[in-house]
Amino acid sequence: MVPVVKRAPVSLRDLGARAIHAALADAGLEKVDALYVGNMLADELSGQKHIATLMASHAGLVGVEAIHTRAATASGAAAFRVACLAVASGEVDLAMAMGVELMSAGPPPERALTMALDAQREIPNGLTMVEANAQLMALYLTRYGVEQARFANFAVNAHRNAVTNPRALFRHRVDATRVVNSRVISEPLRLYDCSPVCDGAAAVILCPAGRAPGVHPSLVRVLASAVATDRFAVADRPDPLAIEAARQSASQAYKQARITRREIDFFELHDAFSIMACLQLEACGFAERGQGWRMAEEGEIFREGRLPISTLGGLKARGHPIGASGLYQVAEMVLQMRGEAGPNQLARTDLAMTQSIGGAGTTVFTHILGW
Amino acid sequence: MVPVVKRAPVSLRDLGARAIHAALADAGLEKVDALYVGNMLADELSGQKHIATLMASHAGLVGVEAIHTRAATASGAAAFRVACLAVASGEVDLAMAMGVELMSAGPPPERALTMALDAQREIPNGLTMVEANAQLMALYLTRYGVEQARFANFAVNAHRNAVTNPRALFRHRVDATRVVNSRVISEPLRLYDCSPVCDGAAAVILCPAGRAPGVHPSLVRVLASAVATDRFAVADRPDPLAIEAARQSASQAYKQARITRREIDFFELHDAFSIMACLQLEACGFAERGQGWRMAEEGEIFREGRLPISTLGGLKARGHPIGASGLYQVAEMVLQMRGEAGPNQLARTDLAMTQSIGGAGTTVFTHILGW
Repeated sequence: MVPVVKRAPVSLRDLGARAIHAALADAGLEKVDALYVGNMLADELSGQKHIATLMASHAGLVGVEAIHTRAATASGAAAFRVACLAVASGEVDLAMAMGVELMSAGPPPERALTMALDAQREIPNGLTMVEANAQLMALYLTRYGVEQARFANFAVNAHRNAVTNPRALFRHRVDATRVVNSRVISEPLRLYDCSPVCDGAAAVILCPAGRAPGVHPSLVRVLASAVATDRFAVADRPDPLAIEAARQSASQAYKQARITRREIDFFELHDAFSIMACLQLEACGFAERGQGWRMAEEGEIFREGRLPISTLGGLKARGHPIGASGLYQVAEMVLQMRGEAGPNQLARTDLAMTQSIGGAGTTVFTHILGW
Repeated sequence: MVPVVKRAPVSLRDLGARAIHAALADAGLEKVDALYVGNMLADELSGQKHIATLMASHAGLVGVEAIHTRAATASGAAAFRVACLAVASGEVDLAMAMGVELMSAGPPPERALTMALDAQREIPNGLTMVEANAQLMALYLTRYGVEQARFANFAVNAHRNAVTNPRALFRHRVDATRVVNSRVISEPLRLYDCSPVCDGAAAVILCPAGRAPGVHPSLVRVLASAVATDRFAVADRPDPLAIEAARQSASQAYKQARITRREIDFFELHDAFSIMACLQLEACGFAERGQGWRMAEEGEIFREGRLPISTLGGLKARGHPIGASGLYQVAEMVLQMRGEAGPNQLARTDLAMTQSIGGAGTTVFTHILGW
């Protein structure tokens, strides 16, 4: 993982190459057979397509298979998914999934980010990713009669965990008062309900189970890889607060891993917005509908709680370099499982789950790691 | 396959949905488990990202796995590759690979197409896809002392085959004189050396070998799926005329299929430019270096020749709706193998090979189909 920053002093290709080289060094390998790259915004922000082959070539992996994968804000998880399929197929021996996003380059990223939504039916009405999440939060607060202040611990937890993560963007604590009083971004969303625009890149290497081709002694296992999608336009969903794709892909993942959700030790979720974290906790069955915020308020999501989330800062405070986030999540889970999370180390890390979300709950990837 | 046209009277999503529904109808299926979508230009031309889930939702495949795959001008082949990996992994039972491109929408596509090249080192110098191919052709003509007129049969063959393909864009014959006298696009490339800007969509369905989940009685087998890449900037390649990624992925594919190139009955290659068709014939071993044009001149590439190419018009005359082309190629090979190619039917179709190229020979996918 490259440290997440507001403005990386390097180009898109250098940023990606750093993550590639870091992953190779960690594994004790010189090369891989395939490179799957997640990136959402380089077209608009760096004027560059054909990203995967560019990265392979620039990082010295000339010749390897290279494919660019996308699922909007879950593009990094899409790369991980394809790497899982590639290795599971037996066709690819060593696959790298890398995600990279340079959001500080080019024009402001908002317009390109919005293109995760429906260009015919949502964008012309002024919907943006921020606005879509604001609407979900407003609906939630009204339907369940919850005060927004009760979401504060999502940000408090994320920032607390980021303080001791050297790769996190926001390494300062915030308290609930500061969160609740932060400026309104789009009613009712406040600043601390939202993840930041930033630069980053992360990569992981996959190999067939039971093989350890490099030097790293401690390989974790992918127990489940599941993807589900929902109706594309939010307004078409019977219940926009249900995040049906999260429910469905989590349910498939539990089945694949042959576990129940109660066995999950920690959960790196897609806290791009506090409301999305809350809705995921509900969709995955960790909380009843309308009760997800309680897991924050009661501290269950803290490192010492029942289901730690965002254990190294999450999208909120480690940062959300869009196409890279899905791979930061996986790489951070591996750190925790190896016992290398330093001051952020959890006590129980045997079963880790991550979810990455493309659009406003539209495409959801769920992965479970274990031993 | 949706017929290729200059300007489809429908939206991007409708175009994609037509191919999805046509493939489902052909297979006698109601749905698939995963949809992998190739598309290169929708960001700029339709203001839309998150294409795969949009297509799934719009086509009535709500819930399925959906991932957008890209490799510049080979994005459709990338979707096919990922579908192959998905089914081979055992994780996905029924996978659809769909490619769609609506090039008539939005601004002119040239700028977005150029982004297949290096945004730091090639585009600022004025290089475009057309210019890159013009340089390759100029180098070829000089190095081998060949007259450009000797490439004419690449276009003659493609147009001849398109006349009787109801889904082709250019359904008129051309003769060598017309090709040789057509206007210069970028010295030495002439109009008939280049494939057209157009709209199209095509899809194929993959299932595990030996299973026939739908009603279609005649399933072909994917015998090989290989991908290779080259140094990203053309100027960095020891020999820009070698198309090393084509050589390498073809060589891997022959090995996977356990065949020699002599057994290939026909070859749907990436004739986006006549020079690229010539270089591929050489890179794949069908002609000696500097001799690829002879296969055109001597009629070996014709339907009755030793190695028919572009048998339903190819990128040149069926058309090159960028992200869809890789899937037109596969779908056309299946037509030939099933004996459903009508007036274009080849005599021998047991082993079919296709190559799709991202950028100027940069990312090359090779697939071989058989029984």
